[in-house]
Amino acid sequence: MERILIKDTKERIGQEAQIMGRVMNARLLSNVSFLQVQDYTGTIQTVWEKPIEIKVGDAVEIIGEIKEEKRAKGGCEILGKELKIISTSIEDLPFDLAKKDLNLQLTTLLDGRILSLRHPKIQAIFKLYDLLIKQYGLVMRENGFTEVKTPKILGAASEGGANFFKIKYFDQSAFLAQSPQFYKQIMVGVFERVFEIGSTFRAEPSFTTRHVSEYISLDGEMGFIGSFEEIMAMLNKIIKEVFERVQQEGAEFLAMYEVNDLPVPAKIPAVKLADFREIAKKKYDYEIPASTDIDPEGERLAGRYAKEEFNSDFIFITNYLWKDKPFYTMPSKENAEETEGFDLLYKGMEIVTGSQRIHDYKQLVENMKKKGVKPDGMEYYLDVFKFAMPPHGGWGMGSERLIQQMLGLKSIKEAILFPRDVKRLIP
Amino acid sequence: MERILIKDTKERIGQEAQIMGRVMNARLLSNVSFLQVQDYTGTIQTVWEKPIEIKVGDAVEIIGEIKEEKRAKGGCEILGKELKIISTSIEDLPFDLAKKDLNLQLTTLLDGRILSLRHPKIQAIFKLYDLLIKQYGLVMRENGFTEVKTPKILGAASEGGANFFKIKYFDQSAFLAQSPQFYKQIMVGVFERVFEIGSTFRAEPSFTTRHVSEYISLDGEMGFIGSFEEIMAMLNKIIKEVFERVQQEGAEFLAMYEVNDLPVPAKIPAVKLADFREIAKKKYDYEIPASTDIDPEGERLAGRYAKEEFNSDFIFITNYLWKDKPFYTMPSKENAEETEGFDLLYKGMEIVTGSQRIHDYKQLVENMKKKGVKPDGMEYYLDVFKFAMPPHGGWGMGSERLIQQMLGLKSIKEAILFPRDVKRLIP
Repeated sequence: MERILIKDTKERIGQEAQIMGRVMNARLLSNVSFLQVQDYTGTIQTVWEKPIEIKVGDAVEIIGEIKEEKRAKGGCEILGKELKIISTSIEDLPFDLAKKDLNLQLTTLLDGRILSLRHPKIQAIFKLYDLLIKQYGLVMRENGFTEVKTPKILGAASEGGANFFKIKYFDQSAFLAQSPQFYKQIMVGVFERVFEIGSTFRAEPSFTTRHVSEYISLDGEMGFIGSFEEIMAMLNKIIKEVFERVQQEGAEFLAMYEVNDLPVPAKIPAVKLADFREIAKKKYDYEIPASTDIDPEGERLAGRYAKEEFNSDFIFITNYLWKDKPFYTMPSKENAEETEGFDLLYKGMEIVTGSQRIHDYKQLVENMKKKGVKPDGMEYYLDVFKFAMPPHGGWGMGSERLIQQMLGLKSIKEAILFPRDVKRLIP
Repeated sequence: MERILIKDTKERIGQEAQIMGRVMNARLLSNVSFLQVQDYTGTIQTVWEKPIEIKVGDAVEIIGEIKEEKRAKGGCEILGKELKIISTSIEDLPFDLAKKDLNLQLTTLLDGRILSLRHPKIQAIFKLYDLLIKQYGLVMRENGFTEVKTPKILGAASEGGANFFKIKYFDQSAFLAQSPQFYKQIMVGVFERVFEIGSTFRAEPSFTTRHVSEYISLDGEMGFIGSFEEIMAMLNKIIKEVFERVQQEGAEFLAMYEVNDLPVPAKIPAVKLADFREIAKKKYDYEIPASTDIDPEGERLAGRYAKEEFNSDFIFITNYLWKDKPFYTMPSKENAEETEGFDLLYKGMEIVTGSQRIHDYKQLVENMKKKGVKPDGMEYYLDVFKFAMPPHGGWGMGSERLIQQMLGLKSIKEAILFPRDVKRLIP
């Protein structure tokens, strides 16, 4: 007998069929039993009018008759005839996967990742993640961006940051990429518009709900821009389109987190950092510490401000200070202490950093000097600016933070299959 | 004036328009000049009936009148009126980007990557690469696979290989992933069918035309299989569909390499490794060395055999020996010295390795012992087999080798934007 996918059962009502899948829930009563079975296309209820032996989590093959059942999600259920256990657990599950919510501590959830991921509500996070990266790729391409894959092993810890992981690379030392920054800029010289969905590594000794040492960055970079506002407008357009499609395709998964829609304004409000520092003080009586550009509490208040003033989940904060931004960031034309740099906040958390970049060789070298950045190991990057680079800029977006904020997850680690932090290298 | 994209010029014949882009070629004559200009949507010829000054490679803004020109590729050209140089080169280009072929030595090509990538024929490689990964993602999803992103930093150098890069990870040691093997298997327990497009790292001290230390692997893994032939059939289906779409969407880029079609058989021929060793001897008078399962010359002959016997660019070689395969590979039911493992060769080069995996905990632990593999650091992986894993298997496909073979490139490094090998960490 040939396997029928669960999604196709409703077209075969009245027929006998074989399904395969995992038992997600089981109610075993004396005269009737119910098994919820999931395959990669859906879930169906099977009803048994004879005694069966089964454990939640077993992988099974079932033969039975497909019967109409209006109250069931797919409009049908299966009256079970034969049950074959393909694979069973040889130890008890460490937690009850059949419960509606797992309600585990983060540590337990992550230590038990190989099994907690099987819970439908956890599955939903990664189904939405799949939709997000699918649609990001599609929408970027529709807007003329070419996908690139740039190296994650770098010859030099450039970009001026300290948070690089060091690798033993044959008889040399190398570093893990903190971002595809230099390479995507070089690729603007080739394809004008490029994007990347790629691994990114940060040796940040942070113990927060928003930091991990490995994540997937959704990067974009575009040339021939007239201003950094064009980058923001493009990003706005991309996110709006991606969110609309994720909402449409992922409604059932969003509903599990009581998210009914994913509104993105046609024009996301923008506020200059200096102005927002004033607003935070006046409106919310909060002084953003002078030692930071904006701190998490400041971001939270910016999110509140966006909601209260503009009914928006998103807000751009622009004109970050020159002293806080990497050497390749274009200084503001209006105020040399500021930059053409921006962050995008989603529900009060930074999910994107972007800017216009310096494209003139002399200006770039000047800016490096002013910042005290040594060119060692980035000569190849600097060289490209000798060869007619157009005005350009782009962004890096944290894919997991985006899902975290979309669903209101407490930690970014819930939005990563197997997260990595200072202490966590396993599973 | 608003910028018009080059792809849209043909709908505006007779109108004045502004375009922006890079000068790919220039013929400057005394009374008339021609500039080929490229933006992210295409290339157009601009004609100048007045003296202009320009260098190949410059980024320009041009205003002119769009005129019908039947001989031109897009059916039109631009009669230039105003030429503004947005960005120019401050040094001479190290090679002539306007030549039809660059004809550079591999080292020169790669050392000069930031500019050689701008050549149209090199661009074509990465346009096809973009199409490949786009379509792999789409076709995998159409077949029920969910995309996952698994960690590239691992707590243990597992999988039994020696070719791991070591990282300093805070106060611990860690390793770069050689493949998503363990994680994709775990994810079969969650989504049944999963795939990944991800970075993969191999510390192989090889100086060949087919090895690099960092590449993008196209992985797939599927559950509830009846045999390893089902995996091969799925892979066959995926590649066939992907190739058809790449051929359709990428025809102009393929044509630059004189590739007119990308035929994939409905059923790719398969031969057992032991049988092919015989065939190589009898048919091609070549003895595959006893020290290898199959060597590059053996692969080349297998490619020849596929072409001569089956008119196929592809051939599966199956039943690799147990002694040569990792501990998680399912032994053959017929012959304990062989495995349910296969490679797929494309034009005489291995591009895929795959197999059915052991899904039974006890069998897996037994097999590890037999192979002398220590479980240290992979307890999390072994644990999942205590919890009802279905029969499953999958593959890892080298995306760059695939492009290399598709276009007949001499080295895999030509198919990678910024390749990494023993000596090459820059650019």
